[in-house]
Amino acid sequence: MLRTYNCGTLNINNVSEKVILSGWVQKTRDLGGMTFVDLRDRYGITQLAFSMDVNTDLCTDARKIGREFVIQAEGVVIERTSKNKNIPTGEIEIEVSGLTILNASKTPPFTIEDETDGGDEIRMKYRYLDIRRNPIKENLMLRAKVSTETRNFLNAEGFIEVETPYLIKSTPEGARDFVVPSRMNEKQFYALPQSPQTFKQLLMVAGIDKYYQIVKCFRDEDLRADRQPEFTQIDCEMSFIEQEDVLNMFEGLTRHLLKEVKGIKLTEFPRITYDDAMALYGSDKPDIRFDMAIVEINAECKGKDFGMFDNSEAVLGINAKGCANYTRKQLDKLINFVKTPQVGATGLIYCKYKEDGTSKSSVDNFFDEDARKAWAAKAGCEDGDLLLIMSGGLDKTRKALGTLRLHLAEELGLRNPEVFAPLWVLDFPLLEWDVDTERYHAMHHPFTSPKPDDIAKLDTNPAAVRANAYDLVMNGNEIGGGSIRIHDKALQQLMFKHLGFTDKEAKEQFGFLMEAFEYGAPPHGGVAFGFDRLCAIMGGQESIRDFIAFPKNNSGRDVMIDSPSDVDEEQLNELNIKLI
Amino acid sequence: MLRTYNCGTLNINNVSEKVILSGWVQKTRDLGGMTFVDLRDRYGITQLAFSMDVNTDLCTDARKIGREFVIQAEGVVIERTSKNKNIPTGEIEIEVSGLTILNASKTPPFTIEDETDGGDEIRMKYRYLDIRRNPIKENLMLRAKVSTETRNFLNAEGFIEVETPYLIKSTPEGARDFVVPSRMNEKQFYALPQSPQTFKQLLMVAGIDKYYQIVKCFRDEDLRADRQPEFTQIDCEMSFIEQEDVLNMFEGLTRHLLKEVKGIKLTEFPRITYDDAMALYGSDKPDIRFDMAIVEINAECKGKDFGMFDNSEAVLGINAKGCANYTRKQLDKLINFVKTPQVGATGLIYCKYKEDGTSKSSVDNFFDEDARKAWAAKAGCEDGDLLLIMSGGLDKTRKALGTLRLHLAEELGLRNPEVFAPLWVLDFPLLEWDVDTERYHAMHHPFTSPKPDDIAKLDTNPAAVRANAYDLVMNGNEIGGGSIRIHDKALQQLMFKHLGFTDKEAKEQFGFLMEAFEYGAPPHGGVAFGFDRLCAIMGGQESIRDFIAFPKNNSGRDVMIDSPSDVDEEQLNELNIKLI
Repeated sequence: MLRTYNCGTLNINNVSEKVILSGWVQKTRDLGGMTFVDLRDRYGITQLAFSMDVNTDLCTDARKIGREFVIQAEGVVIERTSKNKNIPTGEIEIEVSGLTILNASKTPPFTIEDETDGGDEIRMKYRYLDIRRNPIKENLMLRAKVSTETRNFLNAEGFIEVETPYLIKSTPEGARDFVVPSRMNEKQFYALPQSPQTFKQLLMVAGIDKYYQIVKCFRDEDLRADRQPEFTQIDCEMSFIEQEDVLNMFEGLTRHLLKEVKGIKLTEFPRITYDDAMALYGSDKPDIRFDMAIVEINAECKGKDFGMFDNSEAVLGINAKGCANYTRKQLDKLINFVKTPQVGATGLIYCKYKEDGTSKSSVDNFFDEDARKAWAAKAGCEDGDLLLIMSGGLDKTRKALGTLRLHLAEELGLRNPEVFAPLWVLDFPLLEWDVDTERYHAMHHPFTSPKPDDIAKLDTNPAAVRANAYDLVMNGNEIGGGSIRIHDKALQQLMFKHLGFTDKEAKEQFGFLMEAFEYGAPPHGGVAFGFDRLCAIMGGQESIRDFIAFPKNNSGRDVMIDSPSDVDEEQLNELNIKLI
Repeated sequence: MLRTYNCGTLNINNVSEKVILSGWVQKTRDLGGMTFVDLRDRYGITQLAFSMDVNTDLCTDARKIGREFVIQAEGVVIERTSKNKNIPTGEIEIEVSGLTILNASKTPPFTIEDETDGGDEIRMKYRYLDIRRNPIKENLMLRAKVSTETRNFLNAEGFIEVETPYLIKSTPEGARDFVVPSRMNEKQFYALPQSPQTFKQLLMVAGIDKYYQIVKCFRDEDLRADRQPEFTQIDCEMSFIEQEDVLNMFEGLTRHLLKEVKGIKLTEFPRITYDDAMALYGSDKPDIRFDMAIVEINAECKGKDFGMFDNSEAVLGINAKGCANYTRKQLDKLINFVKTPQVGATGLIYCKYKEDGTSKSSVDNFFDEDARKAWAAKAGCEDGDLLLIMSGGLDKTRKALGTLRLHLAEELGLRNPEVFAPLWVLDFPLLEWDVDTERYHAMHHPFTSPKPDDIAKLDTNPAAVRANAYDLVMNGNEIGGGSIRIHDKALQQLMFKHLGFTDKEAKEQFGFLMEAFEYGAPPHGGVAFGFDRLCAIMGGQESIRDFIAFPKNNSGRDVMIDSPSDVDEEQLNELNIKLI
């Protein structure tokens, strides 16, 4: 037996017990007569004590043990003289009578501590050492807990977990597929799924009624920061439901997760339309942990001979509460920020509403105190506030101001990662215009149902057609999205037509789905959560990488196993392919 | 709202309630004045009643509805006059006042009944209709239940579910990998994992201590019957354990699953060595629901001038209890069976021990009553039994007799799918000789630890080296297997050498693992269960296909979505490959 207890369990109640522990050496402290070793495993740290007086040989051996050695220690639990109240095992130590080195360790390339000296690249190369660090280990444990609680909730609601295939069919729609050459089917390829979308819809046609799966998905995209070529989704679908049923179900899941994993009881769970989200926050995933909504001040700004406002489609502002005391330097930094490519604006107007009741703007030449008071009235500015104004095209200005809003909130400490503000964004547009291909794309995916009232507009004004599509936003991050699907063959064909598919293309790629719709497809809809992001947000972070055990870098490489790699020509021959 | 109840819920307590149901039309019965529709969903069937007298139009509409139409019905729950005690909803029906056709259906290509008229190919092409059938739906629900209970057990035991990557590195060892060309890493390839073996070992090095994952694995093999290119594993690994700890843990899991999923309390959980399994059952995965063990009768058979026995390495028999009354025709069928390629034997000797105390064999010319009695004594044959004898090379004869044993048991109804007989097979050989490549292969995998006492034999007698490897067998099927792993770099290098790897090859393919072993790798081991097979066995079946939602056929094709398929040359160009 390699251990009778783990390193996080023993306490004052175990005193006098003979025990065996195994684990890693966190550190060794040599105090002359005594040597102390902190023995670590997943569960905690227990102090081992060696005495030169009691057992000189053993104590001498202990002094030779390096960090991260794997050892087994046998001994008796004794009460410590100097207790450590910060850890559960801090009242006891082990008086060691037997020591075995189970495995040696070279000096690790970075310190295995909560705060490490290792950079990203080296941490990824030695990820197995990085995971020994508490923060990463706890992220992975949180992830496991989120998946367990997701399953608990969905199982209790009657969902069935069904595994859908990974070797599926390539479709040119959407992002790029990873493809897998088939050896047995010469010159043909499987694709890895970007999502189990069509399969979950087929499961609804199959009468499974409520389906879920926590499942890997794949996208061969150029990796922007914090994207992974393989990522995990909580994928769900329900039959005989309307949008309201789906929203309520997954509001329930979100509440359950926050409660069980974080101990937080969500109160509000507001909803907003896409149009309102864009108007109020310049974003389809607003962070509503704080207010600072966008206010339109066209009437108050135009017609005062200030050309920049007069020539703009929209003049919009946000009220930075209590920021009237911003210095020239702080304001210049904001102005420089909006000029970065990330925002892409040409400038920023400000107006300080001072504590003494007067105001001062950067355009006082054009706008007198009364005009500035009118802005304040519209934007809800009080004494001590700072109004920030941008103008230009409506959509662009909204987005720019939305980005500035987040930036300011970050600066002002309004984005507390321990506060959770969920939000449903509803009524997304069905289509979006793609300037490159000069055609409409499905904003969600081609299986999303248009709102019945808007179907007629597909021909006359496609951009105005709203979809039965919704996103779940948490703290300014999209953590889930879904829609009510089309379940009628004729409507699905119409959608494919509007998306520029020929009949032949639609049939080749999605013929199986349209055929399935002819055999009694029920009304259905669902949602998919980005599981990596959900875990990161719940862990109080925005980057997903440290919530994935073995992530890939921005070139899609696993630097630990050094993959992808070359393969033998012989193997390629078997697959009927060659390199070019 | 599309329904207020599902179709499996309403009963006599709901009488007079106004309800809305949605589902599929299982069948329509037109009885003149009344029309009855069986409305089906995942949860059950509820009878809808339409009366010509009460509502002529509605009843006329109901008569036009075909099988598998999706409808919504509104009405009042009433008590049935003619009750059906076989279903939970059998005491009530719905007096329908409103009917909506949610979707029509063409006539399905096969009947959606427990026993269908559809052949395998058509069932696979329309799998979404096949899943509507109770047997398939229940298989998928059983699978979900097995996975839930697996997680419940392992979570309670402190295992953490960790997702390992799907895009990993190709290695020539073992079965053929599926490879995935990388677009971003020119001319390089990922591989899909045959198992997360190296990653789970790295998670042990990382201190995760107890890991599991229910995970897809991939093998590009020519598909023998009942193999799938993608399959699911319950993958587990533990640190600071010995073989005994692993066996106990997964005996516990097996007991838990049988209890929670099948309501069966397993009593015995025997263990046998590989050598004994081969000697007694001619198989490394013996079915011990019945006895019929192989008995060696060399001494009783040789030296009687019967050349076939005298010239054989081994003469072995099995006792077919109570089969002395087998007819000539039955015996001939057995003889023909052993001559099939599946068994590959040249013949079969039999001896009937009759109820009257005399015996009769097919070799009475060489063996008199006394000799035959000696066989009986050795083989435990009593009056009424049939002894079946084969001879030849030891290993071959054992296997042949093992196959005959299973065949006979099947005939005799001794393989009851509702009886569950687990068995650990221990002490597998470390290596097996491969006649094609003329070298030793790892019987389990290259990371399996040899028994410490046998390491010295690696040089002198490699075939005699036993491994710390074990299989979990259930009803004659291997449902799991595992081993204690090597955690020492030098021993791992020695193993690679014996497996014919050059140092360079070992480093290129598994350098990351051997490097990890230098930073404090703990003793560890684990197990992997074949999840598809486990579900099939628990469902009382041997074929895995109907326990997989969307299986592939023997050519690795998904005939429903018609995959694999061609991909654009443009896409191949991006991947720097072309077809040859």
